[in-house]
Amino acid sequence: MSIHGGDVYRNHVDIDFSVNVNPLGTPECVKEALHRAVEMCGKYPDMEVERTGEAVSTFLGVPREYLLFGNGASELFMAIVHGIKPKKAVIPVPSFYGYEYAAKAVDSEMIFYELDQESNFCVTEDIKRVLTEEVDLLFLANPNNPTGNLFDMELAKELLTHCRDKGIYVVVDECFIEFCGNQFSLLPEFREFEHLILVRAFTKIFSIPGVRLGYLVCKDKAVHTKIAGQLPEWNLSCFAQEAGCICAGQTEFILKTRHYIENERQFLEKGLKQMGFRTFPSVSNFIMIYSEKPLYEKLLEKGILIRDCSNFRGLGKGFYRIAVKSRKENERLFMAIESL
Amino acid sequence: MSIHGGDVYRNHVDIDFSVNVNPLGTPECVKEALHRAVEMCGKYPDMEVERTGEAVSTFLGVPREYLLFGNGASELFMAIVHGIKPKKAVIPVPSFYGYEYAAKAVDSEMIFYELDQESNFCVTEDIKRVLTEEVDLLFLANPNNPTGNLFDMELAKELLTHCRDKGIYVVVDECFIEFCGNQFSLLPEFREFEHLILVRAFTKIFSIPGVRLGYLVCKDKAVHTKIAGQLPEWNLSCFAQEAGCICAGQTEFILKTRHYIENERQFLEKGLKQMGFRTFPSVSNFIMIYSEKPLYEKLLEKGILIRDCSNFRGLGKGFYRIAVKSRKENERLFMAIESL
Repeated sequence: MSIHGGDVYRNHVDIDFSVNVNPLGTPECVKEALHRAVEMCGKYPDMEVERTGEAVSTFLGVPREYLLFGNGASELFMAIVHGIKPKKAVIPVPSFYGYEYAAKAVDSEMIFYELDQESNFCVTEDIKRVLTEEVDLLFLANPNNPTGNLFDMELAKELLTHCRDKGIYVVVDECFIEFCGNQFSLLPEFREFEHLILVRAFTKIFSIPGVRLGYLVCKDKAVHTKIAGQLPEWNLSCFAQEAGCICAGQTEFILKTRHYIENERQFLEKGLKQMGFRTFPSVSNFIMIYSEKPLYEKLLEKGILIRDCSNFRGLGKGFYRIAVKSRKENERLFMAIESL
Repeated sequence: MSIHGGDVYRNHVDIDFSVNVNPLGTPECVKEALHRAVEMCGKYPDMEVERTGEAVSTFLGVPREYLLFGNGASELFMAIVHGIKPKKAVIPVPSFYGYEYAAKAVDSEMIFYELDQESNFCVTEDIKRVLTEEVDLLFLANPNNPTGNLFDMELAKELLTHCRDKGIYVVVDECFIEFCGNQFSLLPEFREFEHLILVRAFTKIFSIPGVRLGYLVCKDKAVHTKIAGQLPEWNLSCFAQEAGCICAGQTEFILKTRHYIENERQFLEKGLKQMGFRTFPSVSNFIMIYSEKPLYEKLLEKGILIRDCSNFRGLGKGFYRIAVKSRKENERLFMAIESL
């Protein structure tokens, strides 16, 4: 079993529920931009990311100088740890494996804070216990993956204040936030909290994981410079830059997606519950479930790939993550499960 | 003035002689592969780089397990220094700025070994003086940039042996070697010298700097694993993987390019000499010249961008690097210079 979903290269897969990209697919205008980029790739990509930088700055309402771009959010996580060199990092689990991968690269001591199943794996105030002066970095995901739950906004601000007092940098991964809504984002906090490093990507919402395009927001000039110095030169391809310019203007597509996801998630959740699975409350484009019966192998035999979460730290056998896909695909999943 | 050539984004440029990519342009079959990749970018790129890995392994005659792929050679330089963490690195100058950029990222002490203009900036045995036990890493470029000269093969082997004895890792950058010929490559030495890390890219020879695709060869399993752990997950885009598969089969295009470059370089060199410039012997697709009269600004006024090398460490005012381009473009350069 792989450490990430989406290995459609070594499995025979008809429908991939293991990867959490937008079921509406890549907007045509973004594909067109990528085709245009083919004609540009004889030139070095713009090292200063001028056009894309301006577009994303406008999109977010964040000054250009607070932004940094990466070859996917995964490159930014690496650059962050290389820049900050945390001796001790706190990672709530279950969560995305990439934080652990990054912390390993700089030999950080990792404190895995186990989220409680009883509170649906939500972060609670209790996490403060492990956020002491010796900690340098905290990874948070909003919404979290694989659970799909959001931060309580009051708690988030309380934690940001706590971390500032203790000298802890806070990396907030909002790679899925576009599926939930801006009102749930911690982005506005970047102005008040200079130790906040907010990471996002166009990967999921525009269904372009193959392009590699992430960005971060951080107001602290010194930290910004440190992270920038850890990014390879020309890290952003022509494809990422061209796609980025266009993506940053697709507000309508994002709203349409949110509406679609909300409907389909409810449909999927209801169906899964009816089939007797325990579902965990999600506001994102995927749902984590618990099943007594094994599902992964049997669904794969039917050409359906789901994310077996048993190798997520902090979870165990029986947890699965299922992406919200189109109505037709979601129905095919139901049929496949029923036939087991 | 920028630290690299190719800033066509903030200059008005008709012909760019500052960037050293293949004047024959991107092969059509590579462009087709990039267009095909647009349809694939809704999937995560293959983390195991299976198809591209096999293609490049066959292309080089190097076992797959000795290869690592990067988002351009620049990402590999960063991953190498993050993996090896050299306390002390030797960088002969003048050379590509990227080595210094990478060494800076890990706070290496850098020893800049100044190559001698009298020996046309070639590396000589004298460099051994600075290659002591305290040194951890040596950067070499074959051919070197901006000079375009190759290593003497006997000297190279002697240095590899010397460095092995002293416990020094040797990074050999062969990003331009395809323009010169396999017989000049240090690639075959990877079998004997496990501390050799040979870096290449498809960027220059296939004129795809916008795609970002580099690779390295290293036989030392431990070093290989260390470097791999410093590369972000999914670092290779769908575009890089699709292009890589096709590029690895273009032997004929490479031979055609070599022939073309050899002819045009001779033409360019002869012309520049006749105009009174000192030229430095190059076997690559660019020529370094020395000019008493300033050239950069005046040529830029005419829409021609050349690489002012005065900000190369180890060079000074008056050095310029000029790419070998098509006959027509090379002639336009001559005309522009003559009209100054």
